[in-house]
Amino acid sequence: MKLWQKDKASLAAVEKFTVGKDREMDAFLAPFDVLGSLAHITMLQSIGLLEAEELAVLKQELGNIYKEIIAGDFKLEDDVEDIHSQVELLLTRRLGEVGKKIHSGRSRNDQVLVDLKLYLRHQLESIVEEVLALFQLLQQKSEEYKAHLIPGYTHLQIAMPSSFGLWFGAYAESLVDDLTMLQGAYKIVNKNPLGSAAGYGSSFPLNREMTTALLGFETLNYNVVYAQMGRGKTEKIVSFALAGIAATIAKMAMDACLFMNQNFGFISFPDELTTGSSIMPHKKNPDVWELIRSHGNKLQALPNEIAMMITNLPSGYHRDLQLLKENLFPAFGTLTNCIRMSRLMLENIRIKENILADDKYQYLFSVEVVNNLVLQGTPFREAYKQVGKDIENGTFTPGKEVKHTHAGSIGNLCTAQIAAQMNEVVKGFPFENVHKAFEQLLDS
Amino acid sequence: MKLWQKDKASLAAVEKFTVGKDREMDAFLAPFDVLGSLAHITMLQSIGLLEAEELAVLKQELGNIYKEIIAGDFKLEDDVEDIHSQVELLLTRRLGEVGKKIHSGRSRNDQVLVDLKLYLRHQLESIVEEVLALFQLLQQKSEEYKAHLIPGYTHLQIAMPSSFGLWFGAYAESLVDDLTMLQGAYKIVNKNPLGSAAGYGSSFPLNREMTTALLGFETLNYNVVYAQMGRGKTEKIVSFALAGIAATIAKMAMDACLFMNQNFGFISFPDELTTGSSIMPHKKNPDVWELIRSHGNKLQALPNEIAMMITNLPSGYHRDLQLLKENLFPAFGTLTNCIRMSRLMLENIRIKENILADDKYQYLFSVEVVNNLVLQGTPFREAYKQVGKDIENGTFTPGKEVKHTHAGSIGNLCTAQIAAQMNEVVKGFPFENVHKAFEQLLDS
Amino acid sequence: MKLWQKDKASLAAVEKFTVGKDREMDAFLAPFDVLGSLAHITMLQSIGLLEAEELAVLKQELGNIYKEIIAGDFKLEDDVEDIHSQVELLLTRRLGEVGKKIHSGRSRNDQVLVDLKLYLRHQLESIVEEVLALFQLLQQKSEEYKAHLIPGYTHLQIAMPSSFGLWFGAYAESLVDDLTMLQGAYKIVNKNPLGSAAGYGSSFPLNREMTTALLGFETLNYNVVYAQMGRGKTEKIVSFALAGIAATIAKMAMDACLFMNQNFGFISFPDELTTGSSIMPHKKNPDVWELIRSHGNKLQALPNEIAMMITNLPSGYHRDLQLLKENLFPAFGTLTNCIRMSRLMLENIRIKENILADDKYQYLFSVEVVNNLVLQGTPFREAYKQVGKDIENGTFTPGKEVKHTHAGSIGNLCTAQIAAQMNEVVKGFPFENVHKAFEQLLDS
Amino acid sequence: MKLWQKDKASLAAVEKFTVGKDREMDAFLAPFDVLGSLAHITMLQSIGLLEAEELAVLKQELGNIYKEIIAGDFKLEDDVEDIHSQVELLLTRRLGEVGKKIHSGRSRNDQVLVDLKLYLRHQLESIVEEVLALFQLLQQKSEEYKAHLIPGYTHLQIAMPSSFGLWFGAYAESLVDDLTMLQGAYKIVNKNPLGSAAGYGSSFPLNREMTTALLGFETLNYNVVYAQMGRGKTEKIVSFALAGIAATIAKMAMDACLFMNQNFGFISFPDELTTGSSIMPHKKNPDVWELIRSHGNKLQALPNEIAMMITNLPSGYHRDLQLLKENLFPAFGTLTNCIRMSRLMLENIRIKENILADDKYQYLFSVEVVNNLVLQGTPFREAYKQVGKDIENGTFTPGKEVKHTHAGSIGNLCTAQIAAQMNEVVKGFPFENVHKAFEQLLDS
Repeated sequence: MKLWQKDKASLAAVEKFTVGKDREMDAFLAPFDVLGSLAHITMLQSIGLLEAEELAVLKQELGNIYKEIIAGDFKLEDDVEDIHSQVELLLTRRLGEVGKKIHSGRSRNDQVLVDLKLYLRHQLESIVEEVLALFQLLQQKSEEYKAHLIPGYTHLQIAMPSSFGLWFGAYAESLVDDLTMLQGAYKIVNKNPLGSAAGYGSSFPLNREMTTALLGFETLNYNVVYAQMGRGKTEKIVSFALAGIAATIAKMAMDACLFMNQNFGFISFPDELTTGSSIMPHKKNPDVWELIRSHGNKLQALPNEIAMMITNLPSGYHRDLQLLKENLFPAFGTLTNCIRMSRLMLENIRIKENILADDKYQYLFSVEVVNNLVLQGTPFREAYKQVGKDIENGTFTPGKEVKHTHAGSIGNLCTAQIAAQMNEVVKGFPFENVHKAFEQLLDS
Repeated sequence: MKLWQKDKASLAAVEKFTVGKDREMDAFLAPFDVLGSLAHITMLQSIGLLEAEELAVLKQELGNIYKEIIAGDFKLEDDVEDIHSQVELLLTRRLGEVGKKIHSGRSRNDQVLVDLKLYLRHQLESIVEEVLALFQLLQQKSEEYKAHLIPGYTHLQIAMPSSFGLWFGAYAESLVDDLTMLQGAYKIVNKNPLGSAAGYGSSFPLNREMTTALLGFETLNYNVVYAQMGRGKTEKIVSFALAGIAATIAKMAMDACLFMNQNFGFISFPDELTTGSSIMPHKKNPDVWELIRSHGNKLQALPNEIAMMITNLPSGYHRDLQLLKENLFPAFGTLTNCIRMSRLMLENIRIKENILADDKYQYLFSVEVVNNLVLQGTPFREAYKQVGKDIENGTFTPGKEVKHTHAGSIGNLCTAQIAAQMNEVVKGFPFENVHKAFEQLLDS
Repeated sequence: MKLWQKDKASLAAVEKFTVGKDREMDAFLAPFDVLGSLAHITMLQSIGLLEAEELAVLKQELGNIYKEIIAGDFKLEDDVEDIHSQVELLLTRRLGEVGKKIHSGRSRNDQVLVDLKLYLRHQLESIVEEVLALFQLLQQKSEEYKAHLIPGYTHLQIAMPSSFGLWFGAYAESLVDDLTMLQGAYKIVNKNPLGSAAGYGSSFPLNREMTTALLGFETLNYNVVYAQMGRGKTEKIVSFALAGIAATIAKMAMDACLFMNQNFGFISFPDELTTGSSIMPHKKNPDVWELIRSHGNKLQALPNEIAMMITNLPSGYHRDLQLLKENLFPAFGTLTNCIRMSRLMLENIRIKENILADDKYQYLFSVEVVNNLVLQGTPFREAYKQVGKDIENGTFTPGKEVKHTHAGSIGNLCTAQIAAQMNEVVKGFPFENVHKAFEQLLDS
Repeated sequence: MKLWQKDKASLAAVEKFTVGKDREMDAFLAPFDVLGSLAHITMLQSIGLLEAEELAVLKQELGNIYKEIIAGDFKLEDDVEDIHSQVELLLTRRLGEVGKKIHSGRSRNDQVLVDLKLYLRHQLESIVEEVLALFQLLQQKSEEYKAHLIPGYTHLQIAMPSSFGLWFGAYAESLVDDLTMLQGAYKIVNKNPLGSAAGYGSSFPLNREMTTALLGFETLNYNVVYAQMGRGKTEKIVSFALAGIAATIAKMAMDACLFMNQNFGFISFPDELTTGSSIMPHKKNPDVWELIRSHGNKLQALPNEIAMMITNLPSGYHRDLQLLKENLFPAFGTLTNCIRMSRLMLENIRIKENILADDKYQYLFSVEVVNNLVLQGTPFREAYKQVGKDIENGTFTPGKEVKHTHAGSIGNLCTAQIAAQMNEVVKGFPFENVHKAFEQLLDS
């Protein structure tokens, strides 16, 4: 057997390979790592593993570090392995040996676990806010353009009258369901894993209910093996929640690209929001929508990617999980950008007038005519045949008035009711509790 | 251009291709189609589109058909296109022309939509029951084997003491989160799409709130374009909910296969629940667990499959959606089988005694020893070094007692608290409302 | 511990669960199982494990069984576990004890492996034939409609002139690349795994090169561990090859749906090949294309599904692999149907005349005009500006002649060269060798 | 309608959103962009669109830029949009107006297309080299450890004797098939798209066969619509080729993690190549293997991600395609790292001696014993029963010699034959032609 030579280049390569982008990802976790430590040491003192004075100085200095992070004055030094070590290092530099005590009764595993949960919870809250802004804009546009009729298509064939009121409103309502799923994800995130150590608990008499309360979690991941098992699973669930919103926006983008196509020509945008061509002087391309769609579809593939990386792993921590950060963390920024770009585009959308005046859309009204005949007493099948015959003979000349009155129809968009549905969902997020807990943790 | 010959073989091939497995899938929808029709005609009468006597005879006969379906006495006749046509045909045969009136004010699209929602809601309820049975068994086993210690692994390396109490309990708690996501899916399913017609509403003055109440839905898909847009999206969300449960069980199956492996040897099963080999007389293979794992992983790929089939489709109905039935409908049966097989296996599991007596597991206790030294006053780093040295020198001889007391640890499984979490989730399903609504619909 | 009761219902449920659809899938393997056995016993006799007379009677009877299978006169009896047992049973019934000898020196694992390889090889050959028929049709249509100009779109915006010659021809050429990938899959399939036993080889002095030649394989999976490792991997690779063809057809279907849309209106189909609506008398829906697209997208998800089921499984056989048959086997039929339906549709396609006469398409020619100015000496940027100005002022009135001459352009489709590329690929499939080997095996 | 305000912040946000990471990705394409331009202008001069002197100065300066790129002295300036513009800008700065002529007869679309093809072709060649180095190492280890027996598992149950010779050799042979698929991808990449302009060809009399030869392509993407359609499709195919290799390595990593687990204990690695624990002094974790596995699984999800982003897009360019660069480009580096790390680990692997001496592995030999009885004349079923009985009674005491002789078995690894298979595949890559073409292009 060849003797292993501790060759430096190889060791450096191993180091680089195992660290990967993890230091970069850790930056996202920094403020939450400090918050987690604040809760942990408060609890440690309560069970006698830390003196009151130690707690006091540690809390103050962690508070300082938190402010530095928020102010952008914090960074991972070159030879420091991870965010937890960096925080401990700063504390030790500033406070001496006591700085090391924040690690007592924890392993890196449950420190990462709680950081992740706090980070994800925070990001989900931001996404909710972004979604609400888009929701409100869509509802406003739905009302603004409720009288603008467009052809409704089934099988991509001209089918029945629709309206921009319906179109905008549909995507608004879609977001209600998307936030319902996101709320499920939030609930799963909002459970405290701290105290699970390496996934098998600790012989220290930790008070996990106390850290749960201090960090504003709704409840615990009780079972310590499950607390660890939640890693990967949580990321997958959160990514599915993001993918749902992404799918809604991507579909809207597909519609927008189609409606901007000159064969449809229903909508347009200011030149500055479209892109020209280097060789075709007439082009006004919907690049923003196309990129929203593409990012949206990439996000849709994310839950599967995460599943592929964790499936068939036996229980217990595996280093494989580290890479999930690289998949999931950037997704929040991407989705946020897509939502904001959608808003910018929708704010500046231009809707063509009198779209249905074009003769090719007259068949849209065939069902209306059939229904009118039915309401006047003609049996359905007969009415259907008669209208079909008129169409074939080219003698079909419908009135183009649309009188839909039922809930959710062109004439009765139920904007308020849909807003109420959204409101109901939003009320289910305990954001206030979380904010209060963090304030107390930082204040005390 | 070649003239099109209505050649019979081609037309039959087209017919076969477009119908596909849809008739087979429609069988699952039959009872729900009748329930949907009962609600629809009750509403039609209320808005004057049906006479009271017509309603009476139609309700009675639909009630009969419902009973026939439940009794297994219903089938799609050979030349009948779909379930809706079959029901209409039976009504017309038995009642004459009035039978056709159940289709007034609806299109096939929204009939399928409401059937699907009712079917999915029903299936999700069944899954909840199956999951609960497994949950209770896992909790019971967790208590039964709480004193049975096993090695806990991280990186698949021997790490710290764990127990079968923790192992069973972890999978129980995992199901709590799985049902939380399933509840999100249920809420999205539990909204009435009826009245959206082909996805653009209707000129009939339909009372959609009324059918919503009659069918026990919590609320409506208000916007008719969104009601249609929910097709595909709903299937994807439901499939993700199923995939979550499947992932939990598949992971448990992976553990079980590993624990049955002779190098681990932690668990075994009666011969009848394992499989032999045609050439190796000593084999006792965990085929049941392997198939649970494989089905589970297949289910995990389902949300992606559905996403692939619907992504980038513009809004409005497309025939593409038909095929989603073939993907999703069998998944309920598969998951149910996997849950039941898991229960059967777990009920008959045999746990090896004194697993940790084996010397190779003594290092498990290194953290315990380090922690004890710390609790006795040795600084952590020094304790860590000392134990590390003992291990290297082969002089490490730990006591093997485990005294974990904090919430969720080996000595404090929090079984009741986890049960309370589950109970909280289950209370969020409005099953009673649904049952009551259906009883009234069938009784009246 | 509860004593295990061999309760019959449970055992039956286990039996049903483990068998699953496997008997159904085995039917596909029947002829190949017989061929594999023919090769195996011929080899067994050559190494002295079978008498010449035994070989003679076994070969004759296996030949009979093969004919029965081809004639459709073969079925898996109710209590027979799998195809291998059924064949052995028939032999034993007809020939006595000698019938059992076909199993010597094999395990079920390598019998399934070789059956699978032979089955997949056969199916891939069929797919090649189907693809070729579609390829030829597309090339023919490309030539037929080379003068039919259409708008070419980029970003779904009107860009530059294209033609149906290009459109049909593009999909033809796409199939060349698809078959290139399929050829890779074929090569991987076309290696003999027989003799690997349960994945670790055998103490019998098997002549694996001999069975390789007898079965017309190009070479062996030498390493017996790899022979087994190929299971799952092979299915994934084959599914990717199918998915490539499916993606090509699905994309064509998407185009076809768009071109049939009345806003485009480029193509239409006879009424019998489109579908009407139960409520809209004017509808002619492209259901066939939509289902081709949907099946195509489902097939595109298949490689991922297979990967999800096999990833992270350690080496060695696992029962998980059984389920891959259910995923992959039906895919061949589905893809074949989709190809044939595409052909039927394309054979009957109707192309609109003079599409570009519509004024909205005049901007297509802007690049032509710019290029002409350039060829006449105007610098590009100036020409681009001038044409852009004309477009803005509404004074842009292009000639509509298209004179593209380079290889692969509207005026020079290179149909023959693309056919030559396809021919080159097809020559790389050693179908003749396979046919010859099978004839000899059955004849001898 | 709200008037659009060209608000600067919004415009900057749009700019940032649409550019995304594209400039970063373009850096990978730089040398290939220059090579593409060299071929293009050589051809332009041949058809009279460039003067001989213009060609001469352009070639010289492009050569200089190429050297700067290779030397790392090239960068995208801050306000330059893309790589093509940067090259043109440098030329214009240095040569004046003539610098702009390199863009004649091209659009950005086909410039990106050809850059991509050249880049991918180059990367695939690098991957082949990396794979070959791993292949050779695996073959060498296979020979080195051919006498080291290990248990072979099926269903993760102890099954039959295997060896490290087989284990290493299996992964070597797996790479042969992986390169076969990669060769398919290479062939598809190795076709020239240049001249397709925006996907609809050009009115310039381009000589596409000439650029094909100059760039060392095997042939053309003839049809210009197909040349564009290859975008996305090519990336998907290439990603599948990478995923195949990744799957092989990830599976090996899974085995390695299992074999390092103390319950198996078959292999170990020097301390420097494993990772310790912050709380467990005895840990030696296989982090490198776990990260190889995790990266490998992420790569396995890539083809699906790409499919999700391009499926259902109608033909013609869409901006969606831009994002594929971000998915695919980093995959080459990741895979290369994983291969190299695998090599480093395998070079330093330590194999335990006499693994099978442990009593728990004696049942491995049951088939050997059965087979020996059969070879000595006992009918198989009787031998099987007898051995089974011995096992049950605890009287089974096998000899532990393994005499497998057939091709690919423990005693006959066929290392040379597998190397010959690999050699055959490698010969199919026309790397020499490519190198020669590039040398000529840069020399002339």
